[in-house]
Amino acid sequence: MVVGTQAAAKALSPRDLSEAGAQVLLCNAYHLAQRPGVETVARLGGLHKVSGWNEPILTDSGGFQVFSLADLVKLGDEGVAFRSHIDGSEGMLTPERSAEDQRLLGADIAMALDDCPALPATSARVRESVDRTVAWARRFREAPGDPVQARFGIVQGGLDPRERLRCLERLRPLDFDGYALGGLAVGEGALARRAIVREVGPALPEDRPRYLMGLGWPEDILEAVACGIDLFDCVMPTRVGRNGTALTFEGKRLLRKAEFQYDSAPIENGCNCFTCRNFSRGAVRHFLMAREILGLTLMSIHNVRFMSRFMERVREAVRAGTLPTLAASLPAFRSPNEGKERIDG
Amino acid sequence: MVVGTQAAAKALSPRDLSEAGAQVLLCNAYHLAQRPGVETVARLGGLHKVSGWNEPILTDSGGFQVFSLADLVKLGDEGVAFRSHIDGSEGMLTPERSAEDQRLLGADIAMALDDCPALPATSARVRESVDRTVAWARRFREAPGDPVQARFGIVQGGLDPRERLRCLERLRPLDFDGYALGGLAVGEGALARRAIVREVGPALPEDRPRYLMGLGWPEDILEAVACGIDLFDCVMPTRVGRNGTALTFEGKRLLRKAEFQYDSAPIENGCNCFTCRNFSRGAVRHFLMAREILGLTLMSIHNVRFMSRFMERVREAVRAGTLPTLAASLPAFRSPNEGKERIDG
Repeated sequence: MVVGTQAAAKALSPRDLSEAGAQVLLCNAYHLAQRPGVETVARLGGLHKVSGWNEPILTDSGGFQVFSLADLVKLGDEGVAFRSHIDGSEGMLTPERSAEDQRLLGADIAMALDDCPALPATSARVRESVDRTVAWARRFREAPGDPVQARFGIVQGGLDPRERLRCLERLRPLDFDGYALGGLAVGEGALARRAIVREVGPALPEDRPRYLMGLGWPEDILEAVACGIDLFDCVMPTRVGRNGTALTFEGKRLLRKAEFQYDSAPIENGCNCFTCRNFSRGAVRHFLMAREILGLTLMSIHNVRFMSRFMERVREAVRAGTLPTLAASLPAFRSPNEGKERIDG
Repeated sequence: MVVGTQAAAKALSPRDLSEAGAQVLLCNAYHLAQRPGVETVARLGGLHKVSGWNEPILTDSGGFQVFSLADLVKLGDEGVAFRSHIDGSEGMLTPERSAEDQRLLGADIAMALDDCPALPATSARVRESVDRTVAWARRFREAPGDPVQARFGIVQGGLDPRERLRCLERLRPLDFDGYALGGLAVGEGALARRAIVREVGPALPEDRPRYLMGLGWPEDILEAVACGIDLFDCVMPTRVGRNGTALTFEGKRLLRKAEFQYDSAPIENGCNCFTCRNFSRGAVRHFLMAREILGLTLMSIHNVRFMSRFMERVREAVRAGTLPTLAASLPAFRSPNEGKERIDG
């Protein structure tokens, strides 16, 4: 389970995250390049020092935020020119620059820079993005780096399974330490995403970590695990938590509801998170209603812990061969209008 | 050291507070009566359950916020009628009601309801407030309560030492478990406050806890301790912390300053707080500049821990008879324009 620092780890300390069972911290290279700057992080001893997180750190390439958050100035084969959403300054992201940034940040796992088209995209745009993603992946692979840093390649190809598989086949010889499906969970709809994951997931190298970027909801994770995916990241648990939605094995619990005012039970019976060990539903509801920061922290802790507990059950089910049974026992979590849960903030 | 929950404990969990060395949690009865309501707290098992704090809790009477925050409708001998600053609803605070509220909240220490005049006040208003404070203290003392709950009386009398001493002499027969100086640290100026503390502090019963409400800055605490005061509470450490000011034995450190951008030292060398053990000045500065909630938490933890470390030194100096040496070794903390540090928000 990967949890992002700038977005998903909001209101959490590294200790909160670790105790809740998060295994990898995802940090967004674009955000860090804006504030406090990659060089500042490096001079402060790298991301582990700055974040206080002593376990593995994965950085993204910076590409996703450049495509989704910054003003895109020019996308070309050399790289992507953009204007910062913070101060309007111009920047240029190339595979070499992304590799160097992630090396300076001190990530344990660095992600290749990819060309991430907005969906829906024309088939010409999708083909172009695959070609460019492969070319950039090669340059990223060849860029000087930290020898102990793992590097993951990213499979693009929009909603076209053949383009996805073409991308994967061309990345395979680059011998990445892990492979990711990118450009999904960006609002394309669950059905379209599932179709891609079902086609492409099983084709990813089985002897490497297989990572579906930006996914999130338990039902989507279960489907993806059945297709061979190992690794996930999502802002969903903490974002919905800050808005008052607790995740439990009985479904979502909207803690702002009046019915919880006098409820002295923990958010979820049987949960062993810091919040459930120390606070009642009524107390957490009070902190949320009174807009106390503690409410955001307590909700985030519970939801990250829920995801860890969920992943423990998933791993058990994989070992026992009982994924369908687990799937049948789960309540619905994702509403039809939900799905844009990529780290973007 | 007393730390308020609604104001001073912002961005802190009970564990953060406990680890930082806070000994008593102060909760504001007025705020709790507004949200979530005294009855709600009681039905949720009391303040210890709601706050997650298993150590002593002190509640104020609610009077201070009624006088300073709510719309005052009518102040009379029966009590004080007010309109809520949250929803405009009318309420009536009497000594009996305050005792009952604090009993329902489940405080370990309950404060008597006092008549707290805004300063400067005419001598007639000060005399009236002393008479009313004494009459209310008697009714508060006689109100039914929890037998294991300690009750503290509050000495009023504005900036007139004779009125202060008159109030104290009339409270003494009520045999409170502790005595507080109230109505100070409300913007009256350090010199005027010191004069009162020097006159009245030594007259407070030496065999009971002596509490100066709302005080805060290390130099003021030192002066008060020299006059016999044992107990303090203040929002200052966490409020200035959230604004980027770290307290250290070398003085205040404004962490937003550019000079700390690349500074990999902890906020204070030799400090053993969670923040200083895990984060550099540069990292904390980044969280503050990027408006991450974690920055508020880390600064608050350090400053509460600083106050605990300061109070440890004060206790050592009291035992060794070296308070003046400690005072001479301290840097200045309070700026001349600071001082309105009562819990009010």
